[in-house]
Amino acid sequence: MAYFDAASGAPLHPVARQALVASLDEGWADPARLYREGRRARMLLDAAREAAAELVGCRVDELTFTSSGTRAVHSGIAGALAGRRRVGRHLIVSSVEHSSVLHSADAHEADGGTVTRVAVSRTGAVAVDSYEGVLRPGTALACLQSANHEVGTAQPVAEVAAVCRAAGVPLLVDAAQSLGWGPVEGDWSLLTASAHKWGGPSGVGLLVVRKGVRFAPRGPADERESGRAPGFENLPAIVSAVASLRAVRAEAAQEAARLRELTRRIRARVPEAVPDVEVVGDPERRLPGIVTFSCLYVDGETLLHELDRAGFSVSSGSSCTSSTLTPSHVLRAMGVLSEGNVRVSLPPGTAEDDVERFLSVLPGVVAGVREKLGAPVPAAAVVRPDEVVVDSLGKRCPIPVIELAKVIGDVPVGGTVRVLSDDEAARLDIPAWCDMRGQEFVGEEPADHGAAYVVRRTA
Amino acid sequence: MAYFDAASGAPLHPVARQALVASLDEGWADPARLYREGRRARMLLDAAREAAAELVGCRVDELTFTSSGTRAVHSGIAGALAGRRRVGRHLIVSSVEHSSVLHSADAHEADGGTVTRVAVSRTGAVAVDSYEGVLRPGTALACLQSANHEVGTAQPVAEVAAVCRAAGVPLLVDAAQSLGWGPVEGDWSLLTASAHKWGGPSGVGLLVVRKGVRFAPRGPADERESGRAPGFENLPAIVSAVASLRAVRAEAAQEAARLRELTRRIRARVPEAVPDVEVVGDPERRLPGIVTFSCLYVDGETLLHELDRAGFSVSSGSSCTSSTLTPSHVLRAMGVLSEGNVRVSLPPGTAEDDVERFLSVLPGVVAGVREKLGAPVPAAAVVRPDEVVVDSLGKRCPIPVIELAKVIGDVPVGGTVRVLSDDEAARLDIPAWCDMRGQEFVGEEPADHGAAYVVRRTA
Repeated sequence: MAYFDAASGAPLHPVARQALVASLDEGWADPARLYREGRRARMLLDAAREAAAELVGCRVDELTFTSSGTRAVHSGIAGALAGRRRVGRHLIVSSVEHSSVLHSADAHEADGGTVTRVAVSRTGAVAVDSYEGVLRPGTALACLQSANHEVGTAQPVAEVAAVCRAAGVPLLVDAAQSLGWGPVEGDWSLLTASAHKWGGPSGVGLLVVRKGVRFAPRGPADERESGRAPGFENLPAIVSAVASLRAVRAEAAQEAARLRELTRRIRARVPEAVPDVEVVGDPERRLPGIVTFSCLYVDGETLLHELDRAGFSVSSGSSCTSSTLTPSHVLRAMGVLSEGNVRVSLPPGTAEDDVERFLSVLPGVVAGVREKLGAPVPAAAVVRPDEVVVDSLGKRCPIPVIELAKVIGDVPVGGTVRVLSDDEAARLDIPAWCDMRGQEFVGEEPADHGAAYVVRRTA
Repeated sequence: MAYFDAASGAPLHPVARQALVASLDEGWADPARLYREGRRARMLLDAAREAAAELVGCRVDELTFTSSGTRAVHSGIAGALAGRRRVGRHLIVSSVEHSSVLHSADAHEADGGTVTRVAVSRTGAVAVDSYEGVLRPGTALACLQSANHEVGTAQPVAEVAAVCRAAGVPLLVDAAQSLGWGPVEGDWSLLTASAHKWGGPSGVGLLVVRKGVRFAPRGPADERESGRAPGFENLPAIVSAVASLRAVRAEAAQEAARLRELTRRIRARVPEAVPDVEVVGDPERRLPGIVTFSCLYVDGETLLHELDRAGFSVSSGSSCTSSTLTPSHVLRAMGVLSEGNVRVSLPPGTAEDDVERFLSVLPGVVAGVREKLGAPVPAAAVVRPDEVVVDSLGKRCPIPVIELAKVIGDVPVGGTVRVLSDDEAARLDIPAWCDMRGQEFVGEEPADHGAAYVVRRTA
């Protein structure tokens, strides 16, 4: 068994477990109380906050513990927007942020605010001048992740923080994926993180608000955690979260180098061993443990199941693996193939042997899935002089692309294939296939059901 | 050492600890994932929800796990108010609810809604017809605790639920203090609770929303927990919370009878052993483990410290023990003495010997505090024919009452004492002292600083 989904949640670090169990006895009382159990709880909480602040690189009174990373993001964005409401109601986010950021942006829009979603390159990175270009007098807040959770691409946070600072706009950095590896560089204003991403327990997030940032907590008042995180402090989990952050940081430099070598191996060898694969994300500026690739003519859910059977736990941004049947917004924003998508995110301590076994198993698994899917007869292929129409209505990713691939050879160079599809993933995957295959994507046309995707054979 | 503050938070139940530690290994993964660690987490979550629903007495799909009891209250009230916004924006709460409810009500008012705060009797209970009388066509929601957290008085929840149901208004019951003792009776619509009040871990609350109740979650969207509790599920804590609820329920009937006898003992013997004590809260309709009393001429903070030194951890609703220097809103709403207030809340398993030791130590501790405070000379006492003016400006509870008591004998029967005080607690404590002493409280008059409290000597 190999668990390769650390970006969703890491197994509890041994130090986290030890600290959690130890503080169950010392840290259950209310730190606001005056008696000895309360004073002991208060001391644990103060010590944890001090250690966390040092690891983040902030003042003790700037850091609050929230009940999750998602809560930290929701509260951080809402509080910063409310604090700067007089300045304006314009919010900037990148288009590849975590859903908690994008949902906060949606809520802000629904509440009458305006949102700019900054595009990313094909590697998933924002350009600094994209942020600079959309900052304006009414901008209340900008948000940027330190690194992407699906493809691992690191963002130019320090540079974006600098242009925001110059414009007098606070930058909130979602550091969920990177805080275990090191502090976030640059002159940011707010920061959020989640303990269970670095091997800490569930139930603990961090929200840091730099002194001088206008911040107005939303929702009912509460006296705990500077009014920024209502509810009884989850002290054993907080102690455990901070202890494990310190522990992973101590191992970070060495472990980062080791995982970086392992993911480099995957990046290099998957395309050699598996035909028709696109490795996505920045090859250099990236997190140590995340590597993501997409396999043409494969559906993500079957691939995940087959890898699970082979003993590998990975995740996927393919449409068929999401409850909404839409592909990952990150892959969509990058404009890369989403079908047969696999994200491998290695937890610290991943054995080299497990990675080697994954590399040896993957080609057979992909080939097996393709074989199962590879034989379907196009439902209705009407041949015209220079055009083939493929009716893929009602069929899901990756079938439309498979059917396109099977008939492209039936038209002469210069001829077109028209794929009728009502699958949302086709909008992304057919242009991506054309890119990979050197065919021309002519465009999308409205149709009775779904859309018609027109591809010209150029090769 | 005896910990007598279970109403703030109970030490972890052994079953909770066992379940927490066991599920750290099984329950760390994302229950939304398809691989085996995710499926195992999903099974644990589903089983916990099923068990919790059975213990609450609701359907599985009506129950969500939140990150704390406070969050459950905030989300429950906000969601119910938003869901019934078309009906109206009137909210009913009792004046002795937990601060999370009252803060939600304040936030609703700040947002333009209207709030009725229902008064309570001197025992802390609401009258059913008080709720009935304020229900109106625009009432969106009513809230009532199952039992009070400071004085232990049980509320007539089933009866209030019936009048609300008849008016078509949902009732939200804050069951934080009682759920460990048994399910909440009656036809309520929403229910909230907090695991660490019943010996479960911090970081877990329950929010139950009955089918058919209009409910619109607030804040950014999130796909977890029916959209009612954003963020990664804290699965080990959830499993532990439910396991301990089941365990405390199994022991509830027997333990309730035992604690009820111990608190009855305290209710009876404290007024015998300590002069000038008022025991507050309903003597019969009450929680098994909570008993509250107030001691004249004593300041709460010193009393707490002395009890702590003697090995007893209790809490207090006195003004001097709160960060805002105002007395507990519960004692204020009941109109009872708040000075020298002590809440004893016994955790399940409390040893009889500890209670006996408390009863034997308390009289000496109170006498010691009174002795330390008992000798102050009134700052300026100007004698007039029939009136004594006591200038207690700048002095805190219990000094104004002590000074009043020291001079009341200096005026003839029919004469008055005028106490000048700028201490918020005096507004409550001087009338309460008059009640206890059979003197007449004439009223409060404006003064240059603070207020003048006029007392006529009748005995």
